[in-house]
Amino acid sequence: MDHLKQQLGFLKEIDQLKGVIRQTPLMDKSRQENSAEHSWHLAMYALILSEYANEPVNVGRVIQMLLIHDIVEVDAGDVPLHGSGDKTEQAEREQAAANRLFGLLPDKQGASLRELWDEFEEASTPDARFAKSLDRLQPVLHNLATEGGTWDKFNVDEAMVLQRCGPQIAKGSEAIWDWVKGEIQQHFG
Amino acid sequence: MDHLKQQLGFLKEIDQLKGVIRQTPLMDKSRQENSAEHSWHLAMYALILSEYANEPVNVGRVIQMLLIHDIVEVDAGDVPLHGSGDKTEQAEREQAAANRLFGLLPDKQGASLRELWDEFEEASTPDARFAKSLDRLQPVLHNLATEGGTWDKFNVDEAMVLQRCGPQIAKGSEAIWDWVKGEIQQHFG
Repeated sequence: MDHLKQQLGFLKEIDQLKGVIRQTPLMDKSRQENSAEHSWHLAMYALILSEYANEPVNVGRVIQMLLIHDIVEVDAGDVPLHGSGDKTEQAEREQAAANRLFGLLPDKQGASLRELWDEFEEASTPDARFAKSLDRLQPVLHNLATEGGTWDKFNVDEAMVLQRCGPQIAKGSEAIWDWVKGEIQQHFG
Repeated sequence: MDHLKQQLGFLKEIDQLKGVIRQTPLMDKSRQENSAEHSWHLAMYALILSEYANEPVNVGRVIQMLLIHDIVEVDAGDVPLHGSGDKTEQAEREQAAANRLFGLLPDKQGASLRELWDEFEEASTPDARFAKSLDRLQPVLHNLATEGGTWDKFNVDEAMVLQRCGPQIAKGSEAIWDWVKGEIQQHFG
C-alpha cells in the first residue's frame, strides 16, 4: 500500500494550509481567514455562481482548481493583494512549493494536479479565468461587508480597488463585475 | 439582480461555518479544526482517494456533497461522534437548518443542493457512501497522527473505535478500511 501511503502523506501535509493566515477578515470580523477555509468558500462560490461565467465552464474542474489553488502556500505563505510583498519572488517560491507538494503524490496523479494548478496560474482557459475571477471577488465582498476590511488596513482607495480587482473579475464574469463595481462605488462614494 | 443577491446572501451566510469548531485536532495540535476547513480537506480526500471506492463513483458529485455536507451546522452546531449529544434531536435541528439555509437560494438551485444533501444524509448511493466513508476516515487519521486526539479526550478504546468507524468507512472503501484498521490496532496495541 505504498501508493495509498503516499496519498495519505500528501493529505496530511496539506493540513498545514489551515494555519496559513490571509488578510481577509471573516464576515463577523472575529478573526482573519485561513487559506484552507478560503479554498472551501471559493469552491462554494463556483458551485453557486457558475451561471455568470462569461464563457461556458466545467464547474467540476473550476471547483478542483479552487480546492488546490492555494496549496503552495503551505511552503510559500500568502502574499496579500494590497500588501508590499515582492510578487516575482513569491512566484518563484510557489513554483518550488508546487514541485515539492505535488511531488509527494504518485507520479501520474501529482502530474495531473500540477497541470491543473499551472492552468489556474496561467489563466489560459475559461475554467481558469472564472476560477481566478472568484478568487478576486470573494475578498471584495468581505471588505464590503466589514465596512472596509483590508482596504482600510492598507489605505486602498476606490481607484486602486477598481484597478486591482476589475480586470480579473471581469475576465471571468462581466455580469458579476457590473454588479460588484456598483457596490464598490457606493462603499467609497 | 435579485437572483444574484440571493446567491451572494447564501455565500455570506455560510461564512459562519468557519466559526463552527469540531473536536478533531489539527495535525500540528495547535487548535481544533473548524467545519469549513474540514469540508475543504474532505473534498481533497475525495479528489485524491476516489480510486479506492468500493463502487464506481462520480468524483465531482462526491466533492460537491462534501462541500455542502456540514453547512447545516451554521444553525445546528457540530455533535461529536464520541460525545454524548442526542443524535435524534440533532437530526431534527439539521433538517430545520437545511430548510432555512438552502431556502436562501433561488428555488431551483436550493432544491437541487438540498437533494444532494439528503442523498448524503441517507447514504443511499455509491457517491454518498464514499463521501460518508471519507467523513469518518479523516478524524481517525488526525487521532492517529496526534497520538490519541479525541479518543483520549473521550476515553474511547480500540473496540469502540472499530465499532464506531469500521462499518461506515468499509461501506465506502474496504481497501482503505483494511489499511486503517491495522493502523488503529497498532495504535492501541
